[in-house]
Amino acid sequence: MLQSKLFTKTSKDAPKDETSFNAQILMRAGFIDKLAAGIYTFLPLGLRVHEKIKNIIRQEINLLGGQEILMPALTPKENWQATGRWDNFDVLFKLKGGDDKEYALAATHEEVVTPAVAKHVFSYRDLPVAVYQFQTKFRNELRAKAGLLRGREFSMKDLYSFHADQTDLDKYYEQVIETYHQIYRRLGLADLTYVTYASGGAFAKYSHEFQTVAEAGEDTIFACEQCRAAVNKEIIDEQSTCPICGSKDLVEKKAIEVGNIFKLGRKFTDAFGFTFKDAAGNDVPPVMGCYGIGPSRLMGTLAEIFHDERGLVWPVEVAPFAVHLLSLNPASAKATAGEARTMTDKIYQDLIKVGVEVLYDDREDKSAGEKFAASDLIGCPTRVLVSEKTLAEASVEVKNRATGEIKIIKIDELVNELKILANK
Amino acid sequence: MLQSKLFTKTSKDAPKDETSFNAQILMRAGFIDKLAAGIYTFLPLGLRVHEKIKNIIRQEINLLGGQEILMPALTPKENWQATGRWDNFDVLFKLKGGDDKEYALAATHEEVVTPAVAKHVFSYRDLPVAVYQFQTKFRNELRAKAGLLRGREFSMKDLYSFHADQTDLDKYYEQVIETYHQIYRRLGLADLTYVTYASGGAFAKYSHEFQTVAEAGEDTIFACEQCRAAVNKEIIDEQSTCPICGSKDLVEKKAIEVGNIFKLGRKFTDAFGFTFKDAAGNDVPPVMGCYGIGPSRLMGTLAEIFHDERGLVWPVEVAPFAVHLLSLNPASAKATAGEARTMTDKIYQDLIKVGVEVLYDDREDKSAGEKFAASDLIGCPTRVLVSEKTLAEASVEVKNRATGEIKIIKIDELVNELKILANK
Repeated sequence: MLQSKLFTKTSKDAPKDETSFNAQILMRAGFIDKLAAGIYTFLPLGLRVHEKIKNIIRQEINLLGGQEILMPALTPKENWQATGRWDNFDVLFKLKGGDDKEYALAATHEEVVTPAVAKHVFSYRDLPVAVYQFQTKFRNELRAKAGLLRGREFSMKDLYSFHADQTDLDKYYEQVIETYHQIYRRLGLADLTYVTYASGGAFAKYSHEFQTVAEAGEDTIFACEQCRAAVNKEIIDEQSTCPICGSKDLVEKKAIEVGNIFKLGRKFTDAFGFTFKDAAGNDVPPVMGCYGIGPSRLMGTLAEIFHDERGLVWPVEVAPFAVHLLSLNPASAKATAGEARTMTDKIYQDLIKVGVEVLYDDREDKSAGEKFAASDLIGCPTRVLVSEKTLAEASVEVKNRATGEIKIIKIDELVNELKILANK
Repeated sequence: MLQSKLFTKTSKDAPKDETSFNAQILMRAGFIDKLAAGIYTFLPLGLRVHEKIKNIIRQEINLLGGQEILMPALTPKENWQATGRWDNFDVLFKLKGGDDKEYALAATHEEVVTPAVAKHVFSYRDLPVAVYQFQTKFRNELRAKAGLLRGREFSMKDLYSFHADQTDLDKYYEQVIETYHQIYRRLGLADLTYVTYASGGAFAKYSHEFQTVAEAGEDTIFACEQCRAAVNKEIIDEQSTCPICGSKDLVEKKAIEVGNIFKLGRKFTDAFGFTFKDAAGNDVPPVMGCYGIGPSRLMGTLAEIFHDERGLVWPVEVAPFAVHLLSLNPASAKATAGEARTMTDKIYQDLIKVGVEVLYDDREDKSAGEKFAASDLIGCPTRVLVSEKTLAEASVEVKNRATGEIKIIKIDELVNELKILANK
């Protein structure tokens, strides 16, 4: 993309009414805009990151046999009454339609997915079923001061699985844990993310959270470094040792909850009278699990973790562009400037042809210093600089945003070099 | 995709509480599920169609220089008060947060996009800007009995453009009209869709609607067959002749509004104090246009138009799968059945390898009749049948869903033949 066409601008200063670090840096870099507390617009660069996070999750959940659907946000009161949650779910936004019909804005979708799947499952041969969606969720949070970490409106991947029996659910649940680890690995968060034991509710001893260690985290966990497992503070009195190795050597850390998974038993299938014929011909309700990951919260988490004093430092798989290409405009020597521009245009086209995603800073009214500052703030993994000086040696300067390492590469070799860096 | 893994089932009967034809047939075929009046879930097959419609629109709007963003659904009262629409927009769903803060669920996004773009535009050199999104819209409709044609919750592509002056807006507006025609062409709707002159509001003599002729349409238009233009009934008293050729020979038709575009002038930029420095250094507000197309309504429109008595007949570009591959399971001759299955599995893999999207009916407990009925109802453009009979001649039977034309094709030639049909 030509940066001269990108409508957003980077900014040195964060808006005064924003106190969260992730929102400040994402707003300064032009990734998001704040509409109200906990409510943000994704601007072009931010939407690209958000979509890449979603696609990583989508690929991995598809490998788990998940079938993608899209459920509504506007959900009738009756569905929440059927499960007893209309009055007991404290963050539900509620509203009335013109015909006095009452709705909730879905904060989670068990009340929708359960009756929908029930219409298509009749026999044990139709099970298991795993369906998921990427959907906007709404939560009437009293405080929403953590930027993308706690939104009143936010994005969620929610997967729901239905099983003929507990054994089948237990097996699937373990597969989901492995898939979640793979997702955090691809996001560059593996080393900081702990499977954390939390309260299981009525149906299991534990539920499991995935907690990424970060100063901005609103949760406190007690981590076992041996097992890469942790215990949420909420259950540390009942479970004061590592649930895996039994070690008492747990370290207190602040962390962001980047995923959570629950065994739901038959609570929701019972509530909606969802049954199937088992092998013996009896009508029984399926056993259910649910599995959440929030892409927008993950984007905020990545911003909290991957930055330095100059700006964002995106992991390759989620960067808005793999390469930030900069052409410098010398004040003097117009002819040479023209030559540099022509050569940079060609490099841009060559990279696009081989599928490398490039943001090309072609702006003619910006100084080198302004371009460097914007590039560091936006944080693409690789910066390619074309200047009079590099062209004199038929070369360009390639800089790694994360390490600062600089290489001079011959223009002939550039496309092949960058294809490798961008995994193309 | 393996049909044995697809959790939805086709059904002979439509649910009794659904009166709209498009919703009935889409529910019978397993594309959507009804949650409440005007509120539907997109099931796997339906979500695929919906995404394909979105991608056609996305490709064409990107060619217009549109930059994709994603704005929130939850929008503060203050923004609607700034434009005077809090009390005057009769289909707004309104709700309160825990802190007594009031919100509307966005039925359109001028109140969000205008202040967001204002933060990034300072000079005439920053204009024009065109931004768009695919977002869920909410409308508190009293009646919602037309299936996907009139939802309380529905999907919308909304594009907003900002210009330094009226001339630049006028030029862009004409380009959008051409782009919309191209979108309807790709959806197979070109022959049925008329540019329709409608009330322009305060800023222009006319706005323009794109109306697709259909019995289920809730609008009435007066069409000039010469110009493929029409006049909406709402302005026929003022404009009783074709606005293009002046002909009085207009034909009354029922139609579905599948798009609408407006020149908004400076109403919204004025309301939010959005100005830029023009070339003379004066602070002036940009001129604005807005351009809508609803993917979910288009999906309903396609279902209304492209069907026969046996089911849906999807145009190639939006079909959930290009090919429906059927393997028949003869009751006798187990060995031959195994051979047919092995051969069909291989065809399935070969097609996937070359990028053809295939739904493979591998269900072993269904009769040939059940498979044919499900295939006709789902409506993929090409049906490929593998049976004992065709295998005896090293062939398969290829049937065109729309025309009913049947060809016997040698298995050796099948992949190349289908690549062409599926535009791969």
